[in-house]
Amino acid sequence: MALLDDDRLFPLEPSARSLARALYATTRALPIVSPHGHTDPRWFAEDRNFPDPAQLLVVPDHYIFRMLVSQGISLDRLGIARRDGKPVETDGRKIWKLFAENYRLFRGTPTRLWLDHTFETLFGFDVPLSPETADMYYDRIAELLATEAYRPRALFERFNIEVIATTEGALDDLKWHRKIAKSGWKGRVVTTYRPDSVVDPEFEGFRENLDTFGELTGCDTGTWRGYLDAHRKRRAFFKKHGATASDHGHATADTANLSPKEAAALFARVRRKKVGADDARLFRAQMLTEMAKMSLDDGLVLQIHPGSWRNHSSVVHAGYGRDKGFDIPTRTDYVAALKPLLDAVGMEPALTIIVFTLDETAYSRELAPLAGVYPALKLGPAWWFFDSPAGMRRFRDLTTETAGFYNTVGFNDDTRAFPSIPARHDVARRVDAAFLAGLVREGQLREDEAFELATELAHTLAKKAYRL
Amino acid sequence: MALLDDDRLFPLEPSARSLARALYATTRALPIVSPHGHTDPRWFAEDRNFPDPAQLLVVPDHYIFRMLVSQGISLDRLGIARRDGKPVETDGRKIWKLFAENYRLFRGTPTRLWLDHTFETLFGFDVPLSPETADMYYDRIAELLATEAYRPRALFERFNIEVIATTEGALDDLKWHRKIAKSGWKGRVVTTYRPDSVVDPEFEGFRENLDTFGELTGCDTGTWRGYLDAHRKRRAFFKKHGATASDHGHATADTANLSPKEAAALFARVRRKKVGADDARLFRAQMLTEMAKMSLDDGLVLQIHPGSWRNHSSVVHAGYGRDKGFDIPTRTDYVAALKPLLDAVGMEPALTIIVFTLDETAYSRELAPLAGVYPALKLGPAWWFFDSPAGMRRFRDLTTETAGFYNTVGFNDDTRAFPSIPARHDVARRVDAAFLAGLVREGQLREDEAFELATELAHTLAKKAYRL
Amino acid sequence: MALLDDDRLFPLEPSARSLARALYATTRALPIVSPHGHTDPRWFAEDRNFPDPAQLLVVPDHYIFRMLVSQGISLDRLGIARRDGKPVETDGRKIWKLFAENYRLFRGTPTRLWLDHTFETLFGFDVPLSPETADMYYDRIAELLATEAYRPRALFERFNIEVIATTEGALDDLKWHRKIAKSGWKGRVVTTYRPDSVVDPEFEGFRENLDTFGELTGCDTGTWRGYLDAHRKRRAFFKKHGATASDHGHATADTANLSPKEAAALFARVRRKKVGADDARLFRAQMLTEMAKMSLDDGLVLQIHPGSWRNHSSVVHAGYGRDKGFDIPTRTDYVAALKPLLDAVGMEPALTIIVFTLDETAYSRELAPLAGVYPALKLGPAWWFFDSPAGMRRFRDLTTETAGFYNTVGFNDDTRAFPSIPARHDVARRVDAAFLAGLVREGQLREDEAFELATELAHTLAKKAYRL
Repeated sequence: MALLDDDRLFPLEPSARSLARALYATTRALPIVSPHGHTDPRWFAEDRNFPDPAQLLVVPDHYIFRMLVSQGISLDRLGIARRDGKPVETDGRKIWKLFAENYRLFRGTPTRLWLDHTFETLFGFDVPLSPETADMYYDRIAELLATEAYRPRALFERFNIEVIATTEGALDDLKWHRKIAKSGWKGRVVTTYRPDSVVDPEFEGFRENLDTFGELTGCDTGTWRGYLDAHRKRRAFFKKHGATASDHGHATADTANLSPKEAAALFARVRRKKVGADDARLFRAQMLTEMAKMSLDDGLVLQIHPGSWRNHSSVVHAGYGRDKGFDIPTRTDYVAALKPLLDAVGMEPALTIIVFTLDETAYSRELAPLAGVYPALKLGPAWWFFDSPAGMRRFRDLTTETAGFYNTVGFNDDTRAFPSIPARHDVARRVDAAFLAGLVREGQLREDEAFELATELAHTLAKKAYRL
Repeated sequence: MALLDDDRLFPLEPSARSLARALYATTRALPIVSPHGHTDPRWFAEDRNFPDPAQLLVVPDHYIFRMLVSQGISLDRLGIARRDGKPVETDGRKIWKLFAENYRLFRGTPTRLWLDHTFETLFGFDVPLSPETADMYYDRIAELLATEAYRPRALFERFNIEVIATTEGALDDLKWHRKIAKSGWKGRVVTTYRPDSVVDPEFEGFRENLDTFGELTGCDTGTWRGYLDAHRKRRAFFKKHGATASDHGHATADTANLSPKEAAALFARVRRKKVGADDARLFRAQMLTEMAKMSLDDGLVLQIHPGSWRNHSSVVHAGYGRDKGFDIPTRTDYVAALKPLLDAVGMEPALTIIVFTLDETAYSRELAPLAGVYPALKLGPAWWFFDSPAGMRRFRDLTTETAGFYNTVGFNDDTRAFPSIPARHDVARRVDAAFLAGLVREGQLREDEAFELATELAHTLAKKAYRL
Repeated sequence: MALLDDDRLFPLEPSARSLARALYATTRALPIVSPHGHTDPRWFAEDRNFPDPAQLLVVPDHYIFRMLVSQGISLDRLGIARRDGKPVETDGRKIWKLFAENYRLFRGTPTRLWLDHTFETLFGFDVPLSPETADMYYDRIAELLATEAYRPRALFERFNIEVIATTEGALDDLKWHRKIAKSGWKGRVVTTYRPDSVVDPEFEGFRENLDTFGELTGCDTGTWRGYLDAHRKRRAFFKKHGATASDHGHATADTANLSPKEAAALFARVRRKKVGADDARLFRAQMLTEMAKMSLDDGLVLQIHPGSWRNHSSVVHAGYGRDKGFDIPTRTDYVAALKPLLDAVGMEPALTIIVFTLDETAYSRELAPLAGVYPALKLGPAWWFFDSPAGMRRFRDLTTETAGFYNTVGFNDDTRAFPSIPARHDVARRVDAAFLAGLVREGQLREDEAFELATELAHTLAKKAYRL
């Protein structure tokens, strides 16, 4: 028995299925280009063995623990650290068994697909995870994780990763990237410039962060001009460590294009003291445009990831901190929000701005029409909750007719769950093969075009869009 | 010739179709659990024969008469009573023939599926309803309705209803439920606590309703404390008559969590005189949280049915009153709206809050992410206009990947059209069988899991979620 | 080799495919009814040969040049005239070759379907357009365009157009329509009353337009009464030249129903001087209701096309003017917006109001429920970006269950790209055949009904709704 169906995610109708299979056969072995994600560069720098199965696969994956929480299992029992320091479960085997007992909750979810893929292809299981097999699973995974073949660099190579981008804050010293570079290891791990902590006046410690930002760069971050220079220096520093992109996770997609004088005055206000929500929002908005203008000079790709209401539960935020599965998408406007940015730089063919959404209603109404006309704008792939078979199908269904394929940028895995990376890319390649096969069998595309597109969607477009 | 295709609503591809058929075969005969609806308890209390076919099937069903109205047929001709008392059509046969002449309007709608199901399985027809067969239909239905086998209790048993919930206002004396209980009949008919008339300051006669509320309970509904006590007493009274849930039909999903002092002051304002829209809205919002807190004590499930713009046509509302098919869905926010409630009680695993929507854009963007993390929150099934094959498919497509199956609660028929209940559950069971079969054939689920889920979706989840 | 698959856009499952084919066989040769579009009446009045291939097929089609622009090709190189008069590309062959080199961008878009249809059926090509075949294509198309058989009237007849509606502004003298009428040619080309320039206070030259409006009609457009009379006269004039409809392209769907006194005061304000956005919006809103009231008298069908943010790029608008592919859909509300209009005239069965949307979220939430109950309201077909296979499928999927088929109005091609008209209608007929075949094979519709509906959707409903 196998956990995985060889034809999973392909169309059911036989002629479309066989074409999808043929298309996928040409992409399944292509190297992985992972231009946006959250793996820890320290793994590759130190190349130490991963800890126990629960610590690798359950505790850090908010897709997993949020689903368990939704059914009444406490974060404590899942080993999530409390802010008040009170004890939480630390026994990996106990956490693993609790997870196994509730594995049924993941039926119909992408997490299930990723995990079964990992279980079968990485750890060699051929019986499903269940309360009965939980110990057997735990033992074998633990045993393998202790071996040399399961260290981060070995997995990187086994996963056939051509290049992976991590994401670091503007104040990061990039020491792990430096260590990787010095190590002589051939794996390509690049950073991404994520300046939220020095761009968002509502970020914890914003003003102190600006002080540090000044120290790091030798720029006077007390002035607008010096602050912009500090960004330029950090961007250059990040570029030196492989960065080809910046990333911005704002609550909205708002942009602004103030005059230098207005911008300087706004900066003076947000620099000085805690400011109101309007100024904070305007400053973030202005900074997207500033970043885009810097991109025109240094070539970094600008990524915008808007629309998540972070830490929605005050109770959980107070008790356990950020990133605990309580980030909820909100309605997001792009048409008005991006106009200042697009009026400023949208017609620049040398610039690449990649926009993501957690509001699928924007695909056909706003994002495809915008990306389908502005040279600088491209659509990021289905993101987060929509990094899933049905999510990806809706993305293609709702964007292709207006934006085509060439205003999209291939796949992002956007994950910190390292072992799931091959599974995630595999899902994307299968869903795209299925979509292309459907177009061919419906007479909307020729077969030769579908084969060309399959490779482009799986590999080429990501490399090109992210300049990797 | 039959009106019904045995394989209706199943996938077309043969291997998925045969699996859907097999899954459905295990659920088709399961008893009906109907945890939310609007049948009249008087029917089961008195067990009188239903009146003529038009009065049973056409006049009270706003799905039917709104479609006829949309094509220019007046409400008068359909026998809908006028507020000014002027005569309307009362000849059941005439109304029936008008309906039959226009039966084509229902092509492609769920009403057509439900009616054909009723015609074939309940009344034994094997030719379609049409102008030519209208009289024959009318005669046979009228004849059968006059028999003992077609009385409410006999139909209840024939429909294999395990339990059905009706909905009564907070001021209802539940006399029909009491009569049913005393009658010795075994059919399980439970009530649901629907306090809109004493919770919504904009409800007709709100202040007088509060007086009555006080009289009924012996509580001082002139004070906030007494008012809350009155709710507690009525909830207990409803529970005694089988209620396991309350239900709230607000225009928005707004919730609030005021301090007791603020809440008391707000109550004093809304109690005293006609208040502005903001206070009315805030009071409704606060009361959802109060109801949830009472649920923590008494175990009633909290249902929220927001987002309908009731009585959209002033002309029809003035001429014919409420519930005349002119209720139109509106854009509904949940992420900000539910936050006060979820901050207050969302992490309570002992509490069940079931949220519905008429805004399908909320499924993937808001509701699945919320239900996929908060232990207290569950998703009600596709509601009202979306209680339909395509509506249900979109519900599963848009919620499963994020919320899974176990944060949903099975099917609600939500109907006052008693004869349609088996048809509605049949549609839901078929659509779910089809969805599960698709997942299996696409390699996303094992067959044994699909069989387990089929029964859960058709029967178990509703019982469990509603504590029936 | 053929460019077109005979079974394109049909379901893949064989039994549904064969039924779709059979349904389509009954509609493919039906004459084209084109009740809303933007072809130039001058073509049919003068009946001159079309210019070169690029000027016919590329330069005027904003679907095409916006996609090329999105990939960094400048409007100049595509021959789009600049406002500053600086030279742009005028060599048709160069533009054509640029287009051919980038034809791959259209993979998966409706433009590709329309063009391949045109290439094969109108120009007889059997090899795909590519850089290699660009010259061959150009030569053959140029050669054919120079012949008598490819003049506008000959094409009109070859396309089997029963009637086509053009769209003219309220100040148009309709000279081309008059010339067509006098010419003795049998082709039926009717106009449509589009009064945006005298209804929208923010339209360029609004006040001067009102002066001209007065001169044209002999009415005193200095007064509200005279202004309304001017509309009545122009509507009568347009009706005399075949118009059966008016059309309104507002930014929102707002309507109002002011008292005559309020309306007169508002008119006095907007007539006198540049007014604020609120008054401008209210005036447009009021005018939709006024137009509907006039429709009750003169029988013109009222079309509302809301929700496009015109000329989104300030840069392109400044450089190249209107209609350059930078029109972006926005979120559009209908439930509150249409209420004043519907309260005023929504229950009139003699009135037809056809509403379109660029916000697909409104289909199931707002538009289908509204059209499914108000006798005056009908749903226009999938519009603009959604005039596409997947767009049409979503339209049917999201509207049919609530509004049925008979509250929809058949197909609109809405195009100025004359050669694409047969292709566009062909796509709609195929998608509808596929949708109906699916319903039949899923047991939701009988075959005889599907055949009846196929003809209605392809031909009858448009004629009836538009009174053609």
